[in-house]
Amino acid sequence: MNQYSELTRDERIREYGLLTSEYEKYKGLGLSLDLSRGKPNSTQLDICQGLVEVDMSREECYSKSGFDCRNYGILEGLPEMREFFAEAYGLNKEDIVVGGNSSLQLMHDALMRAVLFGVYGSPRPWCKEERVKWICVTPGYDRHFRITEMLGFEMINVKMLKDGPDMDEVERLVKDPAVKGIWCIPKYSNPSGNTYSDEVVRRLVSMECGAPDFRIMWDNAYAIHDFDEDGDKLANIFELADEYGTRDRIFYVSSTSKVTFPGGGIAFICASENNRKQFLPYFGTQVISYDKINQLRHLKFFGGSVDNLHAHMMRLGAEIKKKFDVALRELDALKGLGIAEWTEPRGGYFISLDTMPGTAKRVFELMKDAGVVLTTVGATFPYGIDPEDRNIRLAPTYPSLEEIELATKILVISVKLAALEKLGI
Amino acid sequence: MNQYSELTRDERIREYGLLTSEYEKYKGLGLSLDLSRGKPNSTQLDICQGLVEVDMSREECYSKSGFDCRNYGILEGLPEMREFFAEAYGLNKEDIVVGGNSSLQLMHDALMRAVLFGVYGSPRPWCKEERVKWICVTPGYDRHFRITEMLGFEMINVKMLKDGPDMDEVERLVKDPAVKGIWCIPKYSNPSGNTYSDEVVRRLVSMECGAPDFRIMWDNAYAIHDFDEDGDKLANIFELADEYGTRDRIFYVSSTSKVTFPGGGIAFICASENNRKQFLPYFGTQVISYDKINQLRHLKFFGGSVDNLHAHMMRLGAEIKKKFDVALRELDALKGLGIAEWTEPRGGYFISLDTMPGTAKRVFELMKDAGVVLTTVGATFPYGIDPEDRNIRLAPTYPSLEEIELATKILVISVKLAALEKLGI
Repeated sequence: MNQYSELTRDERIREYGLLTSEYEKYKGLGLSLDLSRGKPNSTQLDICQGLVEVDMSREECYSKSGFDCRNYGILEGLPEMREFFAEAYGLNKEDIVVGGNSSLQLMHDALMRAVLFGVYGSPRPWCKEERVKWICVTPGYDRHFRITEMLGFEMINVKMLKDGPDMDEVERLVKDPAVKGIWCIPKYSNPSGNTYSDEVVRRLVSMECGAPDFRIMWDNAYAIHDFDEDGDKLANIFELADEYGTRDRIFYVSSTSKVTFPGGGIAFICASENNRKQFLPYFGTQVISYDKINQLRHLKFFGGSVDNLHAHMMRLGAEIKKKFDVALRELDALKGLGIAEWTEPRGGYFISLDTMPGTAKRVFELMKDAGVVLTTVGATFPYGIDPEDRNIRLAPTYPSLEEIELATKILVISVKLAALEKLGI
Repeated sequence: MNQYSELTRDERIREYGLLTSEYEKYKGLGLSLDLSRGKPNSTQLDICQGLVEVDMSREECYSKSGFDCRNYGILEGLPEMREFFAEAYGLNKEDIVVGGNSSLQLMHDALMRAVLFGVYGSPRPWCKEERVKWICVTPGYDRHFRITEMLGFEMINVKMLKDGPDMDEVERLVKDPAVKGIWCIPKYSNPSGNTYSDEVVRRLVSMECGAPDFRIMWDNAYAIHDFDEDGDKLANIFELADEYGTRDRIFYVSSTSKVTFPGGGIAFICASENNRKQFLPYFGTQVISYDKINQLRHLKFFGGSVDNLHAHMMRLGAEIKKKFDVALRELDALKGLGIAEWTEPRGGYFISLDTMPGTAKRVFELMKDAGVVLTTVGATFPYGIDPEDRNIRLAPTYPSLEEIELATKILVISVKLAALEKLGI
């Protein structure tokens, strides 16, 4: 088949008719499918089941140093937990502060505090600034954008390119002292699935920022979430930052939400000594200490070994890859038509599909009418507005293989239908 | 012995000499004791050990409704957990939102949000108010005061009387619209160990507040922490509030930190529908969901039965009462001297000792020199300043019986020495 744009009107009408009857056939099945939820399914969770079955009898509840982890104390996290994360993520142990169950919470709280008290190097609390602007790489993670929207930051869209954010644009924007930061999911980004190149990371830590307290919110949620040994390689942002003396610029977070149990895992923040000295007293005002028993549980589940963690992630990755493979195989039917582009990630949780501009909402409607729920169009953009109305986030992990196959088949038809409608029929 | 104030100077000098030689004897022992930490000791934690030993195999990880608790979801907490807390604390199930591991965090976050966004009924965010004042019942909980100090609220001391805060003073103060709230630990208060009378609770919910968004921060940390069946009875604040239509005034929190494991427990906040509607969207911006596996673990540990919870608390209470009994027996040696007053709580974690005004710091020093750490004098007051320099918080749960006996003996001597010095020798 030629590119849709090269079809004559008659050809388009014929194609539309064929697709419509296919679509109606699927619609008649009375389906109820969901491609919207970026969460593991029970098969993945079963692989993690050992986490809550480790022996936590009395003598197991003590840390290496002999501390009774059933009690208050050790706000910054067990030394062995910090060490484990440091090794697994290539970070400095002393930079790591282990939190509760949510990296989202760590980011949210960090920005709440920035507004009320500033961060290290702030001339004043951000609430005393006339305005605060924040760079949002788009498409991006809706929960990031909700935080900055809630705080009243003016969000500025910057396009995600193949190798990360459009750095020319970022470098231009950060000259403005009102621009205080940027949201980044640097590896297997949500939803685009791509990974920042070394050059992009270097430019992020070396760029000239107008704000002395600019922060890169480095949400490395999928740092170790490769499908197989052939995963993307992300540069170590702290190592690069050290070349430019900018490590204070970085708030690095991650969690085991998609390593063990979402909501039942462990999150951490990694930051320079200056940053930690600034924010730890606030941590200590908010909480006495986090759940160290769950830290111990995680250490025991992996036998304290990063090799075991890696093997575990490979098992999860293989499970997820099957899902992605099915979705990508079905999407192939859109190739060569000039009406859609999508990513083929080597890890993470999402595929980002760009339809013909101005058709994503229509695709969403068609899918909904056929019984398939997609992530709300626009959710991947600040204020819920996709300016080109073309991005669709696909989350293939939760449904079964059969459901993904069916849902993606209907998606392909819907994308085609919407494109033909746009071209005129 | 007569009251110290009635002794002649010669008698005081003689007494001082005798006490000093006793003191020196203890000092010579090279002790290292700690009466400062309000945390359970390992014997108590052993009683709770079953919490982390419950069966959490695959089929146990589902909620009553069949939800896979290993995954994201159910932000407001498992329905069965909310029900359990509701029954145990005499609250409405639908008013309860289950949080993470820390009620301190729930209070901290509630006030952070009040500052940035206001609470239900706020004419404006509190950061837009010219000033915010907050009533601190003293002596009180240092971690409460740290939060309001961090937020820059002007803290106003109100004396804790036998039946709760000095309500005449509270009623006078809250007429000022700048006064936005009050910290309360209504049962077995930290550190005074007493419980608010029904009349005090009634006055708190019926008083006329100048601020339309006044909040009672009702930290019912020791709600179920009686030593035996003969515990204090606290009025149900929501029931009383309903008589006056003031349930929006209440933020009620508690946790299982001193029911199961400190840091490894479950916290909740209980609030009116208006309040929940206002704050739940913020919760949902901060976190996807809390640790439901730990909620399940708690439900299983108690077999979902409030009777079992009660029996468990009686076991813990009996353990703690032994410690209190020893400390109180030793404190008896101060009776009739007119130099100290203290509480004899029927539950909770603390004994509050008021020495002769102007001597608490000296007592602290004497104890320190003899190898016994007390809670820093002043910590129980806003800004760390005890205006009368007389309050000492005793936390008898953590040390052994022998250590408590020894430490309290030295305390008695130190209180006497400091009083004699003050009277002149």
